[in-house]
Amino acid sequence: MATKSVSELRKDLVSGDWIVIATGRAKRPEQFLQKKKKRTITPKKECPFEDPQAFGNPDPLLMYGKGGVRHPTKKDDWFLQVILNKYPAFKVSSDVCPAVIQEGPYQRIEGVGAHEVLITRDHVRHMGLMSKEEVYYVIHAYFERFVALRGDACSKYISIFHNHGPGAGATLGHPHSQIIAIPVIPPDVGNSLRGSKDYFHVNGKCVHCVIVEYEIREKSRIVYENEKFVVFCPFVSRTAFEMRLFPKYHQAYFEELKKEDMHLLADALRMALAKMTEGLDGPDYNFFLHTAPIEDSHFDHYHWHFEIMPKTATWAGFELGTGIEISTITPEAAARFFRKIKVT
Amino acid sequence: MATKSVSELRKDLVSGDWIVIATGRAKRPEQFLQKKKKRTITPKKECPFEDPQAFGNPDPLLMYGKGGVRHPTKKDDWFLQVILNKYPAFKVSSDVCPAVIQEGPYQRIEGVGAHEVLITRDHVRHMGLMSKEEVYYVIHAYFERFVALRGDACSKYISIFHNHGPGAGATLGHPHSQIIAIPVIPPDVGNSLRGSKDYFHVNGKCVHCVIVEYEIREKSRIVYENEKFVVFCPFVSRTAFEMRLFPKYHQAYFEELKKEDMHLLADALRMALAKMTEGLDGPDYNFFLHTAPIEDSHFDHYHWHFEIMPKTATWAGFELGTGIEISTITPEAAARFFRKIKVT
Repeated sequence: MATKSVSELRKDLVSGDWIVIATGRAKRPEQFLQKKKKRTITPKKECPFEDPQAFGNPDPLLMYGKGGVRHPTKKDDWFLQVILNKYPAFKVSSDVCPAVIQEGPYQRIEGVGAHEVLITRDHVRHMGLMSKEEVYYVIHAYFERFVALRGDACSKYISIFHNHGPGAGATLGHPHSQIIAIPVIPPDVGNSLRGSKDYFHVNGKCVHCVIVEYEIREKSRIVYENEKFVVFCPFVSRTAFEMRLFPKYHQAYFEELKKEDMHLLADALRMALAKMTEGLDGPDYNFFLHTAPIEDSHFDHYHWHFEIMPKTATWAGFELGTGIEISTITPEAAARFFRKIKVT
Repeated sequence: MATKSVSELRKDLVSGDWIVIATGRAKRPEQFLQKKKKRTITPKKECPFEDPQAFGNPDPLLMYGKGGVRHPTKKDDWFLQVILNKYPAFKVSSDVCPAVIQEGPYQRIEGVGAHEVLITRDHVRHMGLMSKEEVYYVIHAYFERFVALRGDACSKYISIFHNHGPGAGATLGHPHSQIIAIPVIPPDVGNSLRGSKDYFHVNGKCVHCVIVEYEIREKSRIVYENEKFVVFCPFVSRTAFEMRLFPKYHQAYFEELKKEDMHLLADALRMALAKMTEGLDGPDYNFFLHTAPIEDSHFDHYHWHFEIMPKTATWAGFELGTGIEISTITPEAAARFFRKIKVT
């Protein structure tokens, strides 16, 4: 008996990992809209990010006022500020970097680096609702802190990420991003570095450049592009409606981003987040930066980018046990859906 | 200024991945108890697993009655049954295995294999509440289906997993496990295979045997052990309260499990699940089997085991972007907590 195909596996060109798209279980994009949960928003009075210093948070490391003024004299004019996390997961390094400690067959190391929080002023206006200019200032601040933390001798990697909503793991409702420096190269980045290095050795090209060129030519997975940046739903999406944002030109390190391109990056990131927020009816979401490690300059085969993931499913035993997510919408259908969403 | 350590990174001896334990943010085990959500249990009348065939599910591939009778004549006496998933993520292979298809720079393959569901009879009595004898029959059925699916020429890996509760991704409340055969080696298993192979080449030993021996000698992370099996909280726990269950003797392939050891495996798995259910006040949870692939016999350096993960946190941007989870309880504290939980 011939039965029709129920799913398809796709191989990640960079990591070699497989993902699954359950075409037989495929849903229409509208079926992913979640019943609006009554979201309890912490009252402003109880919010530690409404007036961070009044709540015992340290003084800002960086502060922008309206129109991008740095450290506005009238403190009340702030639009964004970056502070040290009051409950850090990694502490700021002292002069001596910690040594790796052997314990039986195992190794451990003290968690040094940095853990900073970027807070934007408005209690509910998250990045999916922000103007292009507001997103620009957020990116500008990411960049400033990234460059500042790059100087730390004990850190090997800087992770910038944003969690929106409880389903995406945000413990506070007030919009904020996090900037973390850690003393090791994280496993997911390590896998991609290995994969992109291997590809470069065999093909003499950056694997991400090959993907970006192919996607632009092929069109079906493109969500948005401008002169310098492109947003698409990856051929090997790990979650439904996943998007990736790449510079169209080769650039391994986020810190190489040119100041004059920052407005176009803001335009692309804002379009992706706004289309997702509008199209999926305000889902919880995560986005994060993937970039080459800071430890040395041997990662020219890499290509920095943002990954954007709305939260539409819960990882269960199959995903936890295999690292493969079963996605129920194709990236082609997701991209088609996002392309149609009008953002003003 | 000397500040105290806020966290510690630990390196996985098998995969090389790092995990983080935020010692500065550490919680007491009791703080992980979740406010009992009012769990809406589907009424029996609407449950498709209450009388699977009456709900249009196919005839069982395997059925045990009370006391382990196979395919009881009085169908109503069934204790567990295994059926094909009505909405499979992977379809049963036909005679010809699908070929890898090249698409631009990418590769894809049709999702063939199998997708089966193991249902136990009682609507609410999940594995954390079952007797040792009941868990034994579940394991016996896992084993029977594993061996049966092993014969499929197109499959490379068999994944057995169990999701309990909506937070762990179970879409149906009625207790059930899933058995999936897929045509590729999943990434997480691939990483562990690579790591254990490398370790074997360097040290001439199974890395999992080294870990099991060290844990038994060191004691601090042990939750439970019997003559043949040991349950411990791994030095590199990926989630709070994670447990792993290993055979104490070297065995790469699950299908090598001896029939006479199955009761002891049931004893160990049941103790782990019962202590977790009792101690953490009935959390949602996942557990899954990791075993060597079925494709050939070159994986003798591996060591099959179960991983058990209660759901106490939501993965957010840092975890998604790095593959590192920030755990807020040490495995040593988790193991101490579990050891004290009495299970009758």
